[in-house]
Amino acid sequence: MERKFSLTLSGGAQTTVSFVKGLEELTDALSSYQDNVFYVFDENSARLLSSIPEKSIVLPSGEVNKNIGSLEKIIGKALSCGSARDTRFIGFGGGVICDMAALASSLYMRGAKLTLVPTTLLCMVDASVGGKTAIDYLGGKNLVGTFYPAQEVLISTATLETLDGKEFMCGLGEVVKHAFLTEDGSLFDFLKDNRDRIMGREGDLLEEVVYDSLRVKCSYIERDPLEKKGIRSFLNLGHTFAHALESMKGYAISHGEAVAWGVGRALEASYLMKSLDKSAYESGLSLLEDYGYDVSYRIEPSSWTLFESALGKDKKKSGGHVKFVLLEGLGKPYLSPLDEETVRSLVVESA
Amino acid sequence: MERKFSLTLSGGAQTTVSFVKGLEELTDALSSYQDNVFYVFDENSARLLSSIPEKSIVLPSGEVNKNIGSLEKIIGKALSCGSARDTRFIGFGGGVICDMAALASSLYMRGAKLTLVPTTLLCMVDASVGGKTAIDYLGGKNLVGTFYPAQEVLISTATLETLDGKEFMCGLGEVVKHAFLTEDGSLFDFLKDNRDRIMGREGDLLEEVVYDSLRVKCSYIERDPLEKKGIRSFLNLGHTFAHALESMKGYAISHGEAVAWGVGRALEASYLMKSLDKSAYESGLSLLEDYGYDVSYRIEPSSWTLFESALGKDKKKSGGHVKFVLLEGLGKPYLSPLDEETVRSLVVESA
Repeated sequence: MERKFSLTLSGGAQTTVSFVKGLEELTDALSSYQDNVFYVFDENSARLLSSIPEKSIVLPSGEVNKNIGSLEKIIGKALSCGSARDTRFIGFGGGVICDMAALASSLYMRGAKLTLVPTTLLCMVDASVGGKTAIDYLGGKNLVGTFYPAQEVLISTATLETLDGKEFMCGLGEVVKHAFLTEDGSLFDFLKDNRDRIMGREGDLLEEVVYDSLRVKCSYIERDPLEKKGIRSFLNLGHTFAHALESMKGYAISHGEAVAWGVGRALEASYLMKSLDKSAYESGLSLLEDYGYDVSYRIEPSSWTLFESALGKDKKKSGGHVKFVLLEGLGKPYLSPLDEETVRSLVVESA
Repeated sequence: MERKFSLTLSGGAQTTVSFVKGLEELTDALSSYQDNVFYVFDENSARLLSSIPEKSIVLPSGEVNKNIGSLEKIIGKALSCGSARDTRFIGFGGGVICDMAALASSLYMRGAKLTLVPTTLLCMVDASVGGKTAIDYLGGKNLVGTFYPAQEVLISTATLETLDGKEFMCGLGEVVKHAFLTEDGSLFDFLKDNRDRIMGREGDLLEEVVYDSLRVKCSYIERDPLEKKGIRSFLNLGHTFAHALESMKGYAISHGEAVAWGVGRALEASYLMKSLDKSAYESGLSLLEDYGYDVSYRIEPSSWTLFESALGKDKKKSGGHVKFVLLEGLGKPYLSPLDEETVRSLVVESA
C-alpha cells in the first residue's frame, strides 16, 4: 500500500506527503499538474528524468550555489516562462534545490504554489517538510529565508539508488538524530537492528526509515510550526555544534556528518550535565559509531577562536545567549546554555 | 483620546495600529523598544527625527530604489549591527521603505520582529497595514514579496505636515478609493463634505480620514488575509488600470493619481456593464474631480500596445485572464473580466 500522510502547519496550511515507488510513478504523479508549472532542478537531479520539462531551470549543483544569484535566476526564469501566482513551482532535487525553489515560490508574486520532490535522503527527512526555505547570505547559513510549507511533497526512494555514498551518509545523520528524539525508542531500535540492510539501501526498508523519520520530525513541527515555543527547535539536536563546525570548515564537511558529530557532542554534554545516565550516553554513541560516524573527532586548540565565533552567529541565540539542545533521555530534549569552558572541553582535543 | 485598534490576520497574527499626536510622542513610543532594534529610513524620513539611531540604515529615496540591491543593503547592515531573530526591524518612512523593511524583516533569519512607522499619507492608509511586503523586480512592480504583517504600526499625522503636495494627493487617491468600498457611504460623504479642510491638512480631521480609511481597508483584509477568496482583491479597485498606466509611463506618474484615474475607469466600466446606475457613476466621478484628479485623461492610440502588454503582466491574472474590480453600488465590488475592445474604449482617447 502507498504510504501517505498530512501535516498541519501554521494558519492551517496543509502539507501532504506521498510516497511513490519508481521513477515512472513519480513522473506520472507530476504529470497530473498539467502545464501551469515551473520546475527547478540542479545538474544532478535533472539526470533522473528522461527529459527535462520546457518550463524549468537547471542550476549548477552544490551548497556554494545556494545564494541570492541563484534565487534571482529562478525568479527571472519563472517570469520569462510566463509564471503567475497560480503557477506551481516544483523543486526537484536535494536540500539546496528544495530550499531555494521553496524560497523563490514564497517570494514570487507573494506566493506561488509549491510541490517538493526531494531526491536525496537528507532532503527527504529534513528540508522537504516543515516549511523552512532559505539561501545562505554573507557567510550565514540559511540567513535569508521564509516559512512557506509545500502543499505537496512527493517521495520516491528509487531516486536514492544513484545517490553517492557520502550523500547517503549525510542523510542518515539526520535519520539517526531523529532516533534520539523518539520517546518510545522504536526508530532507535529499528536502526540498531537493521543496520546492514539500511546501509545496503534495501528499497522497502529505506521507505520505512524515511517515513518513520519524517513522522518524528512532524510530531515536533506540528506542535510548534513557526518555531516560537521552543519545541520545534528541539529538532536542532546536534545542530548548534554542527553549524559551527561546518562554518569553521567552510562547509567542506557534509551536513549529516557534522550533525552526527554534533549529536555526539550533545550526548556528552547531557552526560556531563548529569541529565543523561551513562548507559543511555554510551548506547547513543554506539549507534552513531555503528553507522560509521566519527564521534571521537575533536578540533585543534588553534581552531577554537574560529569555532567560537561561528557559534556566536548561531540563529538560535536569543538575547545574546546560544542555547543547546540536550537530552534527559530518549525523546526528552531540553534547551540549555553551556558555559564557554564546557563547550571548549567538548569540542577541542586535549593538549 | 488616543485612537488604537487591532487587526487579526492569517494564522492569528495580530497588528496593533496606534495613533500618536506629535513627533515627540512618536519618539517616546519608539524608545519603549529599547536597544534590540534596527531602523530602516530613507533620506526624507530620516530628517523627521532630531537624531538617527545608531543601529540603522538610511537609503536613498524613491521607488527606483525599491530593488533587490536595497534589500541586500538592509539585510547586510542588520547583520553587521548584530541583529538576531528577536531584533525588531523598524521601517520608518513611506511605502517604499515600509515595504522593503517589512520584506527584509520577513526574510531575516526567517522572520524578525517588525514595527512600521508610515510617514506618508499613502503609506498610512495603504502599505503599512495588511502584511504585504515587496520589492520591484525585472520591471514587475511588487513582483517579489511576502505576506508578513507588522506587529505594531505607529501613526503620527504630524509627519504629514512637511509632505509635499504631490505626495499628499498621492495618498488621497487611496483614501478616495476606500470611500467607494464603504457600504454605508460614511467615508464618501465625509470626504464630500470636508473637502477644503482635508486639503488644508487640518490635523484632527486628517487623523480621522486616516483612521476611517484604514478601518475600511481592514474590513476587507480581515475577511481574506492571504488574498485567496477574492475579497481582499476588491481593495485593488482601480489598480489594474493604474498599474498598467504606471508601468506604461515608467512610473513617472504618482501611484495615487494613477489609482484615482483607475477608479474613474472602473466606475465607467461598471456603468457600461450596467452594474452601476448613472447617478452613482456621476457622483463618483465628481468626488474624484472635486479632489483635483484628472479622470478625463486618456492615453494616445499609439500607446495602446504598451498599455495592453502591461495589463498582461498584472499579478491578478488567473488562468491567463485579467480580472477587474467593478462596482454595483457603493461598497459593492465584484470581479469581472473585460474584453479587449471595452478596455480600449475606456482608456484610449477617441480618434
